[in-house]
Amino acid sequence: MSTASPPEPVQRLAVIGCGLMGGSFALALRAAGLVRHVVGVARSPEARTRAAARGVADEATDDPAAAARGADVVLLAVPVAATEATLRALAPALADDTLLMDVGSTKADVVAAARAALDARRLARFVPAHPIAGKEKAGVEHACADLYRGAPVILTPLPQTAADAQRRARTLWQALGARVHAMSPHEHDAALAAVSHLPHLLAFAAMHALAQQPDGGRFLALAGPGFRDFTRIAASDPEVWRDILHANAAEVRAQAAAFRAALDAFEAALDEPARLQRLIEAASRARRAWAPAGAPPSP
Amino acid sequence: MSTASPPEPVQRLAVIGCGLMGGSFALALRAAGLVRHVVGVARSPEARTRAAARGVADEATDDPAAAARGADVVLLAVPVAATEATLRALAPALADDTLLMDVGSTKADVVAAARAALDARRLARFVPAHPIAGKEKAGVEHACADLYRGAPVILTPLPQTAADAQRRARTLWQALGARVHAMSPHEHDAALAAVSHLPHLLAFAAMHALAQQPDGGRFLALAGPGFRDFTRIAASDPEVWRDILHANAAEVRAQAAAFRAALDAFEAALDEPARLQRLIEAASRARRAWAPAGAPPSP
Repeated sequence: MSTASPPEPVQRLAVIGCGLMGGSFALALRAAGLVRHVVGVARSPEARTRAAARGVADEATDDPAAAARGADVVLLAVPVAATEATLRALAPALADDTLLMDVGSTKADVVAAARAALDARRLARFVPAHPIAGKEKAGVEHACADLYRGAPVILTPLPQTAADAQRRARTLWQALGARVHAMSPHEHDAALAAVSHLPHLLAFAAMHALAQQPDGGRFLALAGPGFRDFTRIAASDPEVWRDILHANAAEVRAQAAAFRAALDAFEAALDEPARLQRLIEAASRARRAWAPAGAPPSP
Repeated sequence: MSTASPPEPVQRLAVIGCGLMGGSFALALRAAGLVRHVVGVARSPEARTRAAARGVADEATDDPAAAARGADVVLLAVPVAATEATLRALAPALADDTLLMDVGSTKADVVAAARAALDARRLARFVPAHPIAGKEKAGVEHACADLYRGAPVILTPLPQTAADAQRRARTLWQALGARVHAMSPHEHDAALAAVSHLPHLLAFAAMHALAQQPDGGRFLALAGPGFRDFTRIAASDPEVWRDILHANAAEVRAQAAAFRAALDAFEAALDEPARLQRLIEAASRARRAWAPAGAPPSP
């Protein structure tokens, strides 16, 4: 795809938060031969042991500043609600040229946290990133070196982000096989509310409504593969999704309003087969025309 | 699972409607060595050619009565809206002991059609059936011998359905690897509205709402695997789903009301993280506890 030469290896990578996303970033850089030393940060001793067992980190600590000291790349992979406090903790340890990235699923709130926690010099080295990859199973034990292969990664640089920091971020993600997009934090949050956050909210609500019914258990015993796929994302991690939906509430509400209008139209058409068919046809056509981001173009 | 002896082979099977469901039933019986001769019914010459090419039918016709004449088992696999007219056409050709089944996704309307089209003697041989299997791709070219293996098949016999007809229906489906349930048509329609029909309506509406937005195309380019699975059923066949949603409109509306109440609660909690987390936790727990119908129990 790309004719760019491979990026310079990372000398010291600090992964702040050794979960699925942070762990997979470290494993992917290792597999590509693009990192010399990895320091992992996790709060609990158990998490540090798991990160070591998975081969993610050469050393592990619970201190973000200690990990960031001397690092040329710092990846922040904590829940988005913890962004500001974590940035404040590690900021003093950042060198002048340390590349700082996050992997948060929302961007306007992460950027606001970075503006609050970082001075101008450090803010210029911060490249907010959102790799659209993941599984409904969180945790470093599910981390893998190819999580980002073919996945879209959205960078949302600020006006003051240094051009060379953006370039370094882009080439690192591309070296892991990701397809890099760039847009503003606001554009990112609007798009993700539409294609990810609202679908999660709908799947949570559908599962909740079903499970609360007196006959819910009997009904669920009859659910098949369509239900399995439709509700897969309803099994997602509650704390992660609490933070995402709360942080992006305004855009999620806007998408929910558009969805409710469509649902109203479908419900009103239940007794009018011709109109109902036209509505379903438009939806079915749109879904058939869609291909997952990162999928190779059709021949 | 079952210690029952294998059922007697079907001498002449008439498959009225050679699509995914009817075609797979014929292929599965063939693979099990449980059918001697298959007559397929399809309206268009092209569909008859495809059914022959797929190995579904030994002979093909466009005349339901001609196919049913002399058959010991007739499987009705036409869109549910065509049930009554098709039953009227083939009823005079049914022998006294012909087992008649359908595969419709709704049951109260199919039973009403059968009551209108069949006399008491023939109604006693009708065993309404709904195999919960399928793909978002319809058509005999996707038919396969193992479509029903492990799938739930719901029988909704009437008070006047003969016991031996029910037994024969049950043993045939079990011989194909299906897990047979029995309930009333009304219970069936309430359960399927919850676990299948409403999820389809929601997926159609979500896809419709997204595709209609000015930025819908740009947003869709960023959608990932969660979106792919959540919307897979939105690609389903418009005519089939027009009929299902229209036929079961009352139960679908009841489920939609329960869903809307849940969505209201989730939206109201977007600004209250603790409450939002509790709601997501309940949904996530319910989804993790669920296993697809027909899945083997965990060890």
